[in-house]
Amino acid sequence: MSSADAVGREIMSRIERLSKASESDAVLTRRYLTPEHRKANDLLGAWMTRADMDVHVDPMGNIVGRYEGIEPGMPALVIGSHIDTVRDAGKYDGTLGVLVGISAVDALSRAGERMPYAIEVIGFGDEEGVRYDSTFLGSRSVAGTLDASLLERIDSDGVSMSQALRDFGLDPERFADAARKADEVAAYVEVHIEQGPVLERENLPVGVVTSIAGQTRLRISLLGVAGHAGTVPMQYRRDALVSAAEVIQLVESTCSAQPELVGTVGSLEVRPGAVNVIPGRVDLTIDVRAPADAMRTTAVDAITKGARDIASRRHVDIEIERFHDASSCECNNELSRELALAVETHGLPVRYLPSGAGHDAMAMADLTRVAMLFVRCAGGISHNPAESITAEDAAVSAEVLLSFMRRFSPASRGR
Amino acid sequence: MSSADAVGREIMSRIERLSKASESDAVLTRRYLTPEHRKANDLLGAWMTRADMDVHVDPMGNIVGRYEGIEPGMPALVIGSHIDTVRDAGKYDGTLGVLVGISAVDALSRAGERMPYAIEVIGFGDEEGVRYDSTFLGSRSVAGTLDASLLERIDSDGVSMSQALRDFGLDPERFADAARKADEVAAYVEVHIEQGPVLERENLPVGVVTSIAGQTRLRISLLGVAGHAGTVPMQYRRDALVSAAEVIQLVESTCSAQPELVGTVGSLEVRPGAVNVIPGRVDLTIDVRAPADAMRTTAVDAITKGARDIASRRHVDIEIERFHDASSCECNNELSRELALAVETHGLPVRYLPSGAGHDAMAMADLTRVAMLFVRCAGGISHNPAESITAEDAAVSAEVLLSFMRRFSPASRGR
Repeated sequence: MSSADAVGREIMSRIERLSKASESDAVLTRRYLTPEHRKANDLLGAWMTRADMDVHVDPMGNIVGRYEGIEPGMPALVIGSHIDTVRDAGKYDGTLGVLVGISAVDALSRAGERMPYAIEVIGFGDEEGVRYDSTFLGSRSVAGTLDASLLERIDSDGVSMSQALRDFGLDPERFADAARKADEVAAYVEVHIEQGPVLERENLPVGVVTSIAGQTRLRISLLGVAGHAGTVPMQYRRDALVSAAEVIQLVESTCSAQPELVGTVGSLEVRPGAVNVIPGRVDLTIDVRAPADAMRTTAVDAITKGARDIASRRHVDIEIERFHDASSCECNNELSRELALAVETHGLPVRYLPSGAGHDAMAMADLTRVAMLFVRCAGGISHNPAESITAEDAAVSAEVLLSFMRRFSPASRGR
Repeated sequence: MSSADAVGREIMSRIERLSKASESDAVLTRRYLTPEHRKANDLLGAWMTRADMDVHVDPMGNIVGRYEGIEPGMPALVIGSHIDTVRDAGKYDGTLGVLVGISAVDALSRAGERMPYAIEVIGFGDEEGVRYDSTFLGSRSVAGTLDASLLERIDSDGVSMSQALRDFGLDPERFADAARKADEVAAYVEVHIEQGPVLERENLPVGVVTSIAGQTRLRISLLGVAGHAGTVPMQYRRDALVSAAEVIQLVESTCSAQPELVGTVGSLEVRPGAVNVIPGRVDLTIDVRAPADAMRTTAVDAITKGARDIASRRHVDIEIERFHDASSCECNNELSRELALAVETHGLPVRYLPSGAGHDAMAMADLTRVAMLFVRCAGGISHNPAESITAEDAAVSAEVLLSFMRRFSPASRGR
């Protein structure tokens, strides 16, 4: 492996080149199965080949590079992340993890090292779900959990996923062949930008993910009585917005009680919404996440009960709809410990932290044991062109991954 | 005067007939200087004539009926309200006051009574300001405070007010002749639905208005930092919406501290407004009203300072714009006492209450002393087809006004 500086510079320059594979000149947007997806696959395939990997595009468009172990056909440690983006995206979300994987394999290959297991680096074609309004298409297809009915989904131009696969040169009838068998895979490790501010605030380049948060989303409607802002005395009001204000504060106080719990009122609409009319109706959403399902469930119950109490005390009607529930995904303890030891090898303190955002590792957990390494990003900003990391941190993550590979044993398996 | 039952029924049936003079078959909308305004003037003119009044339409389209006193040309007690409506309006807002005035004069005329003053009933052509986006056009023209530049305003069809006056058969160059001289007018009294819930809750048909509230409107922007709802720990957030929630509660608590003070956050917008994004920006409006200007100013100062404190504590930026300020309008004590005595004459308790909404009396206060009688309305609802009052209450208001007329002395003048 060359010096850390060179590794960091190479990853950053490859990220820049990939960011040019965009549907728009002005901003970065790269959706699943577009010509820009193909361009990204072509670039990644060339870099994988240079790292001595055998390259193919699987039946769902994911790009796969394989670096054989000491014997051909050994079970693989899979290093992956996604290469699609949201609209007007940052350059690092997803892409970084694939390039760090290639970089680490490149170091092994240059050193002539073969492991007692194969390594595969996968660039998943879809995680964000922008084109077909369904997330994790790439990792679910590899994990074998993708429902066939999704192939009939239509994008905003009326193009079905089946047609898009054909246009990409693939055979949609073979989609199930993207799925890997459990005994072909030893583990899954994903490197990803944190998308949060914790590592930056604690001045750490990387952190080890304990689990990916479970999530509950609620829609709450508060139905009071609209009225004239000048003529209805305060004590006679049934103001939907002051009721909502109490609910917003309840979400904040409930979710501040545990360090790894978060809760957000992200959208709120007021009706009729005129300066001189007492609000008669407010619709708002609540998003609650926690690394432990029991913690989340307790918080959601407290918020639901508290909101009903507020509504009752203020004589407004309340409707609560729970429209999304996803369990948390535990990272594998043994893999995470190995990642932590690799971090310590580089003289860095180990920071364990949960992931509040979803990742391909969640889908891959249906196939194999998973672990994740987070990389510090500026201001915790992501899904935004202002997303950024440093070349130094990119190099640290590649070195940590390389140390992990050198320690990794495929012997102890299972999720 | 016929029995109270007959008086109430007549007022209600006239209100029904007037409600047919609408620009739409489905809902009641009657804007200034439309053919429906003319129809309303024609109906009112006929009823005024039947009450022995001399009728004319003034140069701004207001309909005026005059009932001479014991000698011709005496200063007039003016009874007025507006006959235009908002879009999709109720039938009673404004119209009731004109019909109650005609009904009271009709009673005097039937009894052959002449007063030591003239009585004029005026139906102002515009108060709501729907057509030309400027309120009180009728009463301001009579009070002599209408700015000539308003005649060049254009409605949504591109028709100037000058042109609309010509189409109505009037000469816009004579608009200033609608203004009355102070010595022609002894006082102004307006009967109007309460548009609030106080009288209904206290089981009273009418109340005496103490003053018309002054008003301050603020626009507040809270500028925090948007972020991922899953990845930013609670203690690192600068959430614009939880800051706004505190401001909303501050408005409520500040304005609940005084019985006649009201404050409303009527509109609120959240950006970016997605379920999984911490709100980065909130824009909201605050409407504060009080019958005493000092009470309102103190409340607005407390809200402004408190909002800045909230923003500072939560590390969000704040912008406060004061975009509307109107002083309160005191009703004349002596006139109000006379109205109260008239209420007592009917065996009713006197309820003094402020008006939170604006009324033609505010504009007429620039010309003469004013007083107002409020009439109970169902649920405090107005500016809505569900607006309603009872025939009994309409009759009570007409009887109270008649008693007031019989007691009224034009001797003590001035505002």
